[in-house]
Amino acid sequence: MTFASETIERAIEALTLLPTIGRKTAQRLVFFLLREPKETVETIASALLALTEKVQLCSTCYNFTDTDPCAICASPRRNRSVICVVESPSDVVVIESTHEFSGLYHVLHGTLNPLEGIGPEDLKIKELLARLDENVKEVILALNPTVEGEVTAQYLSRLIKPLNITVTRIARGVPIGSELEYADEETIARALQGRVPL
Amino acid sequence: MTFASETIERAIEALTLLPTIGRKTAQRLVFFLLREPKETVETIASALLALTEKVQLCSTCYNFTDTDPCAICASPRRNRSVICVVESPSDVVVIESTHEFSGLYHVLHGTLNPLEGIGPEDLKIKELLARLDENVKEVILALNPTVEGEVTAQYLSRLIKPLNITVTRIARGVPIGSELEYADEETIARALQGRVPL
Repeated sequence: MTFASETIERAIEALTLLPTIGRKTAQRLVFFLLREPKETVETIASALLALTEKVQLCSTCYNFTDTDPCAICASPRRNRSVICVVESPSDVVVIESTHEFSGLYHVLHGTLNPLEGIGPEDLKIKELLARLDENVKEVILALNPTVEGEVTAQYLSRLIKPLNITVTRIARGVPIGSELEYADEETIARALQGRVPL
Repeated sequence: MTFASETIERAIEALTLLPTIGRKTAQRLVFFLLREPKETVETIASALLALTEKVQLCSTCYNFTDTDPCAICASPRRNRSVICVVESPSDVVVIESTHEFSGLYHVLHGTLNPLEGIGPEDLKIKELLARLDENVKEVILALNPTVEGEVTAQYLSRLIKPLNITVTRIARGVPIGSELEYADEETIARALQGRVPL
């Protein structure tokens, strides 16, 4: 299927560079934009370009930020004795939205994955260790409950424990609002192992 | 859920201006772009901006085009005695992809819809009538088989027939590859009415 307009062709192809957007969706989006006022397209284009121009990694926690250090690392209200280690910047967003954590973060940008050739030097592990001075009392590993997350947690724990810093990891168990009947066996096994006194 | 970076916030909000893209999807797209080389974002942004700068409506058929008249209207190989009337530019793409039609097109940019206040003056109907000179022998109505499509087809047919031009509409029936069992009654009724001798 080709269009009379090369410009439309090019816009459709450009949008298919995005994940989960196929040719059919891209076509629908382009036709939508063609019916919209010029300003809509300009708003989207300039907001995307700003990503490349303004967003950088915080040189302390390696989260995405517009300023270095990021707002969290720079805040005098954060508890500097606890560092929560996460896989990706979106995990920071999720944890912040709970308002349960007032410490600092460290973004690894991935997990160890020998099969895909991702080793410790590909993650921000060296940078994490460099932050662990005498002020840091606890490192919380908030990695995903996947095989790679487990392996990475084990690896980090072995590196950090000798420094006399408490290493914890977030609880795995049955999610709130769900039913035991629908939880998988591994989750229930973990929930049993992690049971707490009432 | 808010981000440390205002630039990321702004990009997410901009993407949710697009149909079918919610906040969660927009967030995933933005994080994807942040991991991509700068050029990917630039390609997408410039391709979208080009839509507002270069794409216009052909002053003859009202299809989207980079040049006026469009490539189809300008082509000496098209049969100028047949005009196929469609609702939207994407319909032109679909019909062209069949390679079954060598005439010209006319894009109405919608259908009559009294409930939504869309009358003849909101569509390119006046412009269609202005094209119907002595060279035009047939007008094919390739409107969608919806109530609005039917109403629009009836309306156009009543205007064009008195000009001694053949008015036809594309066949409605059981789609190729489907099964009668799964077709709705209206489609089967239309297929029966439109039966052809073998």
